[in-house]
Amino acid sequence: MSDTQPQSIDLLIEARWVVPVEPHAVVLEDHAVAVSGDRIIALLPIAQARAAYVPRETVRLPEHALIPGLVNAHTHNPMTLLRGLADDLPLMVWLQQHIWPAEAKVIGPEFVRDGVELAVAEMLRGGTTCANENYFFPDAIGATYRKLGFRAVVGLPVIEFPTAWAKSQDEYFERAGEVHDSFRGDALVSTAFAPHAPYTVSDESFARIRVLADQLDIPVHLHLHETAHEVEEEKAKSGLRPFQRLQKLGLVNDRLIAVHMTQLTDGEIAACAEAGVSVVHCPESNLKLASGFCPAEKLRKAGVTLAIGTDGCASNNDLDMFGELRTAALLAKAVANDAAAFDAASALRAATLGSAKAMGLDAKIGSIEAGKQADLAAVRLSDLETQPLYHVASQLAYAAGRHQVSDVWVAGRRKLAARELVDMDVAGVLARAHAWRERIAER
Amino acid sequence: MSDTQPQSIDLLIEARWVVPVEPHAVVLEDHAVAVSGDRIIALLPIAQARAAYVPRETVRLPEHALIPGLVNAHTHNPMTLLRGLADDLPLMVWLQQHIWPAEAKVIGPEFVRDGVELAVAEMLRGGTTCANENYFFPDAIGATYRKLGFRAVVGLPVIEFPTAWAKSQDEYFERAGEVHDSFRGDALVSTAFAPHAPYTVSDESFARIRVLADQLDIPVHLHLHETAHEVEEEKAKSGLRPFQRLQKLGLVNDRLIAVHMTQLTDGEIAACAEAGVSVVHCPESNLKLASGFCPAEKLRKAGVTLAIGTDGCASNNDLDMFGELRTAALLAKAVANDAAAFDAASALRAATLGSAKAMGLDAKIGSIEAGKQADLAAVRLSDLETQPLYHVASQLAYAAGRHQVSDVWVAGRRKLAARELVDMDVAGVLARAHAWRERIAER
Repeated sequence: MSDTQPQSIDLLIEARWVVPVEPHAVVLEDHAVAVSGDRIIALLPIAQARAAYVPRETVRLPEHALIPGLVNAHTHNPMTLLRGLADDLPLMVWLQQHIWPAEAKVIGPEFVRDGVELAVAEMLRGGTTCANENYFFPDAIGATYRKLGFRAVVGLPVIEFPTAWAKSQDEYFERAGEVHDSFRGDALVSTAFAPHAPYTVSDESFARIRVLADQLDIPVHLHLHETAHEVEEEKAKSGLRPFQRLQKLGLVNDRLIAVHMTQLTDGEIAACAEAGVSVVHCPESNLKLASGFCPAEKLRKAGVTLAIGTDGCASNNDLDMFGELRTAALLAKAVANDAAAFDAASALRAATLGSAKAMGLDAKIGSIEAGKQADLAAVRLSDLETQPLYHVASQLAYAAGRHQVSDVWVAGRRKLAARELVDMDVAGVLARAHAWRERIAER
Repeated sequence: MSDTQPQSIDLLIEARWVVPVEPHAVVLEDHAVAVSGDRIIALLPIAQARAAYVPRETVRLPEHALIPGLVNAHTHNPMTLLRGLADDLPLMVWLQQHIWPAEAKVIGPEFVRDGVELAVAEMLRGGTTCANENYFFPDAIGATYRKLGFRAVVGLPVIEFPTAWAKSQDEYFERAGEVHDSFRGDALVSTAFAPHAPYTVSDESFARIRVLADQLDIPVHLHLHETAHEVEEEKAKSGLRPFQRLQKLGLVNDRLIAVHMTQLTDGEIAACAEAGVSVVHCPESNLKLASGFCPAEKLRKAGVTLAIGTDGCASNNDLDMFGELRTAALLAKAVANDAAAFDAASALRAATLGSAKAMGLDAKIGSIEAGKQADLAAVRLSDLETQPLYHVASQLAYAAGRHQVSDVWVAGRRKLAARELVDMDVAGVLARAHAWRERIAER
């Protein structure tokens, strides 16, 4: 007998299984998540939850695993409109003869808006609730995420040549500051510096970024050691590996989100761990562009925060975080020559809490814990492709497809309900994607 | 004006795109496939087809690509009942402490029947229409495929120790002969010898297989060079690499379906090409068990017939040939250090005609050509995950998911219609899978 009154809440989600991610490798059976406003207020057994709360809405998921929304730690979402435009080509042919000419023709606020809309629809249908964005026109990109109610860290691009976004080094920084200010205090959208790569950004720009990132307290999102060629080129130029050059410039610290990292010495891995650098593993992009193999298991064992990203649709060709975390888990074993490497729970962790930590959002998202934002995805495991079921984490990592995601919430708001996008005009999104395709394909 | 009468046929499938696979890398727009009985009789533009034929049934696929049914060239389908039973373990711990004890408890005709039924349901829902099966109790396995109207080559196991299937070397061969005879002339089910691997099969048994495979005119389906350990062990024992030992025994010929092949010298690749050996690439199994990397692009360039298989669900953990051909295409590029390696069309070819050729079925299946069996799969490409669409082959290889398979035919009979399995008792299949799970999990 209790004399506490049941508490009114907005939402109670009752699930056959809950995978909170933190604590690690735990699967709770018949648990419920209580949500008030945009927050998780409790995770507890269903029976207890029914006694403790009077929810405005109850969602029952009797055949589902409820997981934290997946966090895509590296993407160029406007490029979703270039999905499959050019494949199976050497990197420079792909960039110079296909991607850059296509972008030159279309880039601008409308293109990025329509690309991000298509990407958000795809991400939500695949259980992804947050993206680490890296593209030009972050103002229009951020406005689109805000409008759609999707969580994102929007990159503020810096690159050493003029683009449609900015004409000079000063203009890149000026616009970066403006965009940062315009999202200050936003509930869903924040910013990071996004210097393109060591081979396209000067020491001077990196020095400015180091100071400004500290002042604004934002991460630095950087392509780093993507290919052996990049490392050799820098060594020929400065005598340093790109990572060493960044160390010298003071960029190797816990703000750094280092993307790709296929070329790493043991010393560099140790330095990442010590400095608190996060590494974003994009296995499918690294394979497709023949960039190399990121030593994911070595990084994990060294205690480096490991995140997972899809990269853009022009080099993947999807935003499927289930596919990506599976590829990461499979590939890590062969690369480490150890079938026990990077297990299912570690892959799920990298794709949620690991990515969140890389983006500086781990106090807010990445796990199902009281006090965190209610960013959640439900995965239906009753499909015959995930039967019989011995271990929930195994089914999620090695057997489930993203189409088994049934329901998704961002900040407590339902965005996908029984596979339907509840507040998006899908026909309009597709019509606009088709119109861009017509413009891009006519050459 | 034509004075030929329109011809009565059973089925006309009108598709937005047809990917015939042969000729290579061709995509036909607005084409139709005319089917009479179990055969394709023509592939022609829709308008011409409507004038030439009076079909009993017309199926319109206005947003779909019609492809040859995918051919899974290496699987152990009864093990679908062990999906995810044990992951993330070293090979010998996995086998000795998990898989073998589980199998010992349940193996028999009922287990293989129920496992194959679940596998067939999964394969059909994923666009696969033919499997190269490798497991004990091929009599019950073959009977199940026959009953379900699914095409398969059923392996006749030979291994140098007693199992539930046979107690002595003589009994393996005796039962192999009986099973072969029982499927002689079957429209859908045929047989192959399936000696387990060089390290579990004696020279004497291989010699018998060589003679009998010639007499019966069937392939030899063998795990070969799966790991570096296997190669080293054989060298320590006989002074030969397993491939060399097979050469000495006369097994290296165009009947040989060599599965895995992660360890290959350039000389062995050339020898495969010259002898007409087929190689089945199982990239996800090779990654998950940390077996190594098959040099798929080198094999392809050398002219070796390259097939694709999922391996069993205990080491994959699915029968998703779309996922497998994508992993093959992605991985081959990084392994070859060439982003242009193993392109989308080559991956689709390996998963259809390549697999069919490995299994000795390329005169019957593997491409959409007049005279071949009507084994077909339709993939809906209007989903937003495959939009916008620039290149059909790219979307199929790099973006589509198996859940976008809408319709499947085997030998002219519809097996999947708008995602529904038309002649299977899915609830029964799932209930039996669940019952096996209960028995296997209680330990």
